[in-house]
Amino acid sequence: MKIGVFDSGVGGMTVLSELRQEFGAEEFVYLGDTANLPYGTKSAAQVKRLSADCALKLKAHGVSIVVVACNTASSLALDEIRDACGPEIRVIGVVEPGVSAAVEGLKSRVDSVPVLVLATRATIRSGLYGKLLREKASLIFEQACPLLVPIIEEGWTDHPILHQTIAEYVRVYREQHPVGVALLGCTHYPWIQSAVQSALPGWHVVNSAKAIVRALQQEAGLKTSSGNAPVKWIFTDPDAIPEFARRLYE
Amino acid sequence: MKIGVFDSGVGGMTVLSELRQEFGAEEFVYLGDTANLPYGTKSAAQVKRLSADCALKLKAHGVSIVVVACNTASSLALDEIRDACGPEIRVIGVVEPGVSAAVEGLKSRVDSVPVLVLATRATIRSGLYGKLLREKASLIFEQACPLLVPIIEEGWTDHPILHQTIAEYVRVYREQHPVGVALLGCTHYPWIQSAVQSALPGWHVVNSAKAIVRALQQEAGLKTSSGNAPVKWIFTDPDAIPEFARRLYE
Repeated sequence: MKIGVFDSGVGGMTVLSELRQEFGAEEFVYLGDTANLPYGTKSAAQVKRLSADCALKLKAHGVSIVVVACNTASSLALDEIRDACGPEIRVIGVVEPGVSAAVEGLKSRVDSVPVLVLATRATIRSGLYGKLLREKASLIFEQACPLLVPIIEEGWTDHPILHQTIAEYVRVYREQHPVGVALLGCTHYPWIQSAVQSALPGWHVVNSAKAIVRALQQEAGLKTSSGNAPVKWIFTDPDAIPEFARRLYE
Repeated sequence: MKIGVFDSGVGGMTVLSELRQEFGAEEFVYLGDTANLPYGTKSAAQVKRLSADCALKLKAHGVSIVVVACNTASSLALDEIRDACGPEIRVIGVVEPGVSAAVEGLKSRVDSVPVLVLATRATIRSGLYGKLLREKASLIFEQACPLLVPIIEEGWTDHPILHQTIAEYVRVYREQHPVGVALLGCTHYPWIQSAVQSALPGWHVVNSAKAIVRALQQEAGLKTSSGNAPVKWIFTDPDAIPEFARRLYE
């Protein structure tokens, strides 16, 4: 089966990497809309239009599944992507699987364990995480972390400034709650999962890139397989790929 | 006279602010191409195309002068902007005035005082600062500082993480040179000029937003005047203006 994975840039590579580990026998097309990154600072109307364009590009490559490995697009443009893909292509966003994984450990709707969403400003502003979580959890915090992607793209994934920035973003939650669930609501964040875990000792850190593997098993019936077919890489602006990401695919 | 000022986003406001202080009687049109920010991560071809579009927009507003208050556009697209404007409109970029101001204090071409350019990755990569400086200085360093704009846009303009990040970027230069000239090669950086100055005690920090005032006096013959006419603000995506900047114009 041919699976398209798209993101505004390179963050979706964390999702692709999990998918390839689990479904090695499938063919993958990765589309990074680098000409238009970041989506996180754009208006909803622009994100909808750009995401639909990406969906059409993947459709032209004959994919059967489109994985929207971009939280901003998943939050704002899933309907437009589904419209562009048509009924033949299954579209899976990254938000709902992440939410399901985050609430899984909670005992009930009224469990007092907090769920903290860490994401870009645009994702938080879209309100989708909050809306979905409120159906299943009672104590929800959402924290926009606009500096984390630039720090990751600087290559500072284990730098004191990364650790201090995360500490700053999560300080109030950590001080008030010895345990909790932290949901990585941005596909760049799996690259700094261990730093987030260090900043929130005792908390359970949920990687939504992993959660999407299960969504593909359950919703699209994909079976575990092994293999290592080359990925078809498409970047709308090949010159605009962050340095640190080049080694991940070249 | 009507003066157009354009930037990919809000950084050019630092230039506009200096211009209004000095030439208060003129009319200003500010164009922020927020639908396409940041230019710094885009390819040269894209920056040229987008910059020419902005120039045409300002031309349609009847400006006599276009100030390119964006280092990336000034570095990569001045020719395309001049072509789009035509011979009637004077185009002034931010790079050459900054370079002139930076080398002004040097005693000669072989002065051993270092000149350090701080800028975004795209501006450094364009090579224009290095090329212009090499004609007038002998010891030149260029440092890409991709985290500074996101930190400024987070509003952390006097935060420990800002100070540490600057310290990290300038550490080797400060350790090796007790004096020097640091050129702020990004129109966001005047907002953190005092933090840069603290990180480089003994150095002379040059604000190219101020340097462009002199370029307008010398090249366009503008005279100092006072007044406070309202600015005509144009943003290609009004929803994509960083929060911290809204209070600067609303």
